[in-house]
Amino acid sequence: MEKTLSAGVLLIGDELLSGSIKDQNLAHIAVTLEQRGIRVRETRIVPDIEQEIVDALNALRSRYDYVFTTGGIGPTHDDITSDSIAAAFSVDNVIQQDVFDIIQAHLNSKNVAFTPAAQRMAYAPEGAEMIRTERSVVPGYRIENVFVMAGVPSIMRVMLDAIVETLDIGHTILSQKIHANVSEGEIAQALETIHLAHHGVEIGSYPQERESELSDYRVIFVVRGTDQVEIESACEQIMAACEAGGYAATRQN
Amino acid sequence: MEKTLSAGVLLIGDELLSGSIKDQNLAHIAVTLEQRGIRVRETRIVPDIEQEIVDALNALRSRYDYVFTTGGIGPTHDDITSDSIAAAFSVDNVIQQDVFDIIQAHLNSKNVAFTPAAQRMAYAPEGAEMIRTERSVVPGYRIENVFVMAGVPSIMRVMLDAIVETLDIGHTILSQKIHANVSEGEIAQALETIHLAHHGVEIGSYPQERESELSDYRVIFVVRGTDQVEIESACEQIMAACEAGGYAATRQN
Repeated sequence: MEKTLSAGVLLIGDELLSGSIKDQNLAHIAVTLEQRGIRVRETRIVPDIEQEIVDALNALRSRYDYVFTTGGIGPTHDDITSDSIAAAFSVDNVIQQDVFDIIQAHLNSKNVAFTPAAQRMAYAPEGAEMIRTERSVVPGYRIENVFVMAGVPSIMRVMLDAIVETLDIGHTILSQKIHANVSEGEIAQALETIHLAHHGVEIGSYPQERESELSDYRVIFVVRGTDQVEIESACEQIMAACEAGGYAATRQN
Repeated sequence: MEKTLSAGVLLIGDELLSGSIKDQNLAHIAVTLEQRGIRVRETRIVPDIEQEIVDALNALRSRYDYVFTTGGIGPTHDDITSDSIAAAFSVDNVIQQDVFDIIQAHLNSKNVAFTPAAQRMAYAPEGAEMIRTERSVVPGYRIENVFVMAGVPSIMRVMLDAIVETLDIGHTILSQKIHANVSEGEIAQALETIHLAHHGVEIGSYPQERESELSDYRVIFVVRGTDQVEIESACEQIMAACEAGGYAATRQN
């Protein structure tokens, strides 16, 4: 029997915390996992500091069915993800000889030296299973319930595609959206009643800015759950509440 | 004497974890705080579940000089930030009569009923100081070292502007960027040497996708710290390392 599966996401990198670079991975991970019936329940963003990575990883891996990390598996001194994950699991960060050989051959073909600094890309925590893709000579890997992926979005996506088919399948998550020209304050009372009458679904209410890319309407309601009948009922009642108040509303995803 | 000040950020909302909506607040918060000499050291994204918010807030507020939250202060049933923050501080979530009166007058002028559901917007944890702006009749607030802000980006920004002038000023953080047409693997060894010779600065190395909005070059190096002389020295050595390898490089921000 299917159950609800949970995931934690750990985004690693100073650049995400300083605002230099905006994360482009979380939403893609969340949407991809949800198609597998796995929900992201928590995300942490930590700097390139080993103890911070260790603490966050240990908190997440004990709480959720799966953990996905991005970033810090490149060749430079600030790429400390593998050292940190090894520390979190109390194992050594060891050379993966076949990965080493593949990277070396790749660099040889480009007449680039495989320096000791770059060789760190061929290390992974003892016991890790490599996740190889055609997109990158540096693999991601799995250790227990933790999946370690690149931070560069195009590489991360290919790694995630390779990973996702190996994951257990959770209860299918369904969602419906309603866009409405109502302010949240005006509909809040009706929404609370509908919420209390539909315990198996979550109803989110998201006010939109005037220049929103997501909707021309003032609010998007998102109804989510695993029971299609209950979702349908909640949506119909939200539509009816909007219509009763004279507010334009439409179901669209 | 100025010191380095730290901040944690807590982004609250199911929609951020499901990928329905991408966060647009963290980078702005980070950049704004950094101009004040305050660095964001950790970010957590949690769902609209009270215990999750309580646990994350308590972890962050004990570790960092300041904590900034976004989201969950609207009128609907999923807006549980104030209840949760009150629980985290073990105080009651109490009505703010002046806020209540202002919202009521505002809604009266629009002929909209101020329902019990919507009245939750006028509650805040006991002891909170309101942060009023002209952008919204619903204020943000401060309680001890925690600042509670709206999730809607245009409102959050106005609230943050009102907050930032009240914060202590940390050691000025300086940063320089170098864009270079080099792969990380080729420069990693030189970068490690430069890193080891400049303990007071952080050197980040960020490979760019072909279609990157940030740079036409293959890598961006970011050198950050509080000592201009040391930053300048590190930048010069990175430029020299690129030039020695025949890689095009340019300093630009």
